[in-house]
Formats: sequence, structure tokens, C-alpha cells
Amino acid sequence: MARKESEEWLEGRNPVLEALHSGRKLKKILLAPGARGESLTAIAELAGQQGIPVEYLEKKQMDRRSVTGRHQGVMAVAEALPYATVAQLLSRADARGEKPLLLLLDGVEDPHNFGSIIRTAEVGGAHGVLVPERRTAPLNATVLRASAGAANYLPVARVKNTARGIEELKANGCWVLGADPDGTVMWEETFDFTAPLCLVLGGEGTGLSRLAKEKCDLLLRIPMYGEVSSLNVSVAAGVLLYEVLRRRQGE
Amino acid sequence: MARKESEEWLEGRNPVLEALHSGRKLKKILLAPGARGESLTAIAELAGQQGIPVEYLEKKQMDRRSVTGRHQGVMAVAEALPYATVAQLLSRADARGEKPLLLLLDGVEDPHNFGSIIRTAEVGGAHGVLVPERRTAPLNATVLRASAGAANYLPVARVKNTARGIEELKANGCWVLGADPDGTVMWEETFDFTAPLCLVLGGEGTGLSRLAKEKCDLLLRIPMYGEVSSLNVSVAAGVLLYEVLRRRQGE
Repeated sequence: MARKESEEWLEGRNPVLEALHSGRKLKKILLAPGARGESLTAIAELAGQQGIPVEYLEKKQMDRRSVTGRHQGVMAVAEALPYATVAQLLSRADARGEKPLLLLLDGVEDPHNFGSIIRTAEVGGAHGVLVPERRTAPLNATVLRASAGAANYLPVARVKNTARGIEELKANGCWVLGADPDGTVMWEETFDFTAPLCLVLGGEGTGLSRLAKEKCDLLLRIPMYGEVSSLNVSVAAGVLLYEVLRRRQGE
Repeated sequence: MARKESEEWLEGRNPVLEALHSGRKLKKILLAPGARGESLTAIAELAGQQGIPVEYLEKKQMDRRSVTGRHQGVMAVAEALPYATVAQLLSRADARGEKPLLLLLDGVEDPHNFGSIIRTAEVGGAHGVLVPERRTAPLNATVLRASAGAANYLPVARVKNTARGIEELKANGCWVLGADPDGTVMWEETFDFTAPLCLVLGGEGTGLSRLAKEKCDLLLRIPMYGEVSSLNVSVAAGVLLYEVLRRRQGE
């Protein structure tokens, strides 16, 4: 049972249940013989309905295979979460008859922040998230879990690097708005947020790279009033995204 | 070096540095003999200026004492973070000539979420956070770290339970606004947010308790458009707090 590149191991009741509900392709499900509970019953039922093989694996062996240390008696082998293309993200907006609303993460390396941003983007009705190939947490089970399953629904596109990603978005008619302390206070900005747009957020501690900043059409500032000088990046993403959503609704 | 109730062990360069900068009372600082770096030099300097004893402790022994597993060669023994009273939170607003803006957490048990909310509240200029005695993460080094040091600046008050906390706030002239899917969409709500107020947020997965909901003056809803039906509680806190801040500025 060596792990393959094309596979993703899911661990824990909620991630496996979310994957089953989302219709994600699972190769098999592993259960610890002693494990009990409502969600495990639901998992076994859904696996039966979807024709997914269920195998039993002793808890001790599961402990050894677990990466997160929180398998809760259930693991699943899924096809690796596929990365989408920028074109797919844009056509998702098209299919819904909406103007694109995307997030580009410039150096978010913490998988919990990455997952939390995917969750926020999905809940907020964004059409996808873009990440550069380097300095980004891999799209794995930890991210999926931190996303509360949202990574099953929201596509993530990988771009060569942040600058190229921004250029590709601009070439496709998107406005690129960076989160930065040098920008206009977000709620004072008169930009028409109903336009196709992508929000760009920098990593924890570092913020946007100089190059990314230069390539943005506009910089937005979240006002801050405390001794601590920055928000957690996933909180900043939520605050900015909801400001855009409010303005898109004309409120 | 057994740990005492009245003590708090800090771990890692940023938490120790933040504590030194904030003027938090440190009993001593422990350094691993081999550890190097700018922040360690700064820590040693500040410790000297403030007359805090510095001891050396081998990395291996530090590993054993570490709770977070991320001590980075430096630990500090601080007086335990004290809880404030509701009166202290309110007088903090008074001293600044501002209307109280508080957050009450009804069952936030994850220390990372707790810390992240303290950070957001501090950055957003709120006057304090309230937590019930039970079903709340303890105010410890993990929370402090997750708060990026904000727990050194922003007071946290402990109340008997959420219902009593709400009553105490109301008795002191605060409006109590709960985050709930049954509420009015936050940006459609016509309430005057410049009034003294406290936002109440429920725990991950459970939301506000029935009793807390009933006691709120008003329920606010963050609009959601995805398959996943809730935001991470620390993101929700940020989104709501910034909506209040925007309205307080008359934007």
C-alpha cells in the first residue's frame, strides 16, 4: 500500500464523508474494525451505494499510515485532487452567468490558511482559487480538511508564478486587486467591483511580493487600528471578499 | 522546573519577543546555547534592559518541556495571562472616548480560532473579548501564539456563562448582536452600529446556543452562496467585525 502521486489519502470521518457526498472518486475506504459511530455507518452506506470497496485495517496500522494523526478509524484512497486551469475557473463563472470572482494566493504556505481560504472562497460564491507552483501548500488532505470539504467543490488552478498568473488573468479581462497596506481603504475605493476580478493576497508575514504589487491594477487596504499590524491571511481574505460581495450587491 | 498554575510558558521567538515588547511580566527567559539569529539577539538585549534573568537550557531539554513543539531555541516563563473583568473592558472603551465594541465567544474551543479572533479583535480596534468559563479554550501560549501576540494587548474577560455575560453587557448599556443564519443579512440591517455593542459568535459546527440566541437583541446573517454552509468562526468574526467598523465610520 505504498502511496502514489496520483492518489490522495483522506483521513477522518468528516473528510471522508464530505468526499462521498461531493461525488469525489474514491478508490477504496479503510475502516478500523473497532470503530463505531453514526458517521461511520453513513460512510459504509454511501460506500455501498457508490460501489466503493471497503477494507478493514487495524487501528495500529492506521496510526502508522496516518499523516494527520487524526484518522478517527477511517481512511480513504482518492484520486489526487486535480488542479484546474485558469480557463476552467473563468468558464465556471461563465456557466453561472456571473462575472469572474477569483482569489490568487501569493505565497500562502500554511495548509490551514490555504484550506480556510478555499472554504471562504467557496462559501462566498467565488469561482476558484489560483496558486503559483512554488511557495504554496500542496493541495492535500490537510488542506481539504481545513477547507471543511470545500476543496471538493471549488477548483484550484496552478499557475507558473504569481506574475504570470496576474498577466493571464488580465489577458482574460480580469481586474487584479491586491491586498496591501499601501492601498486605498477598501470601503473608500470607488472601483466598480461588479467587474470581472481577482483578489491577490500575500503570505503570512511577508505580504505581497514587490513584483506582484506592481502588476496589480489596484491595491486595497483593510484598515487596522491595533498594536498588531496584520490580520491572519485567511481572515483578510474573508474581509476583502465580503466587501466585494457587498459592493456587487449594490449595498 | 515544574509548571505552576500562575505561570505561563511561552515558546518561540515571536511570542517571546512580542511579550517583551508588550511589557508583559516575564520571570525568566531560557535560551538554547546553540541558537542564533537576529530575533534572539533582540530578545537577549530586551531581557537585559528589563532586568529579566536569562538561563541557558540544552535544546534537548527544551524539546522535552515544549508543548507546541516549536520553541525555536527560546522559551520564557511569564506570569499567567490574567483574565479581565467586563467592567475593565468597558472602561477601556471609556478611556479611549469610544463606544464599546466587544466580542463574546459562545463555545469556541479551538485555541487557534480563539487566538485568531483575539488578533482580529485587537487589529480591528475592539475593546476586548469575553468567554464563558466552560467550553472555551484556555488562555495559554498556543492562543497567544495564534493571536500573533495580540493577547498581550487585548483583554479577555471570563464570564460565568454566555447568558449571564449577555445580561451583564445589557445591564451596562450594550446591544448584543448574535451571528446566526436566521438573522438579517448583515449589510441590510439598519441597526445603528455606532451604539455600544457586543458581537456574539458560536463555536465551530454548533453555532450559537438556543439560549444565547434568545438573549441577543438582534441576529445578523453573513450571506453564504456555496455548498459548504458555514465559514470558519475566526473568519466569520473578521467579516462581521469589519462590517461594524465600516458602518461606524459612516461608510
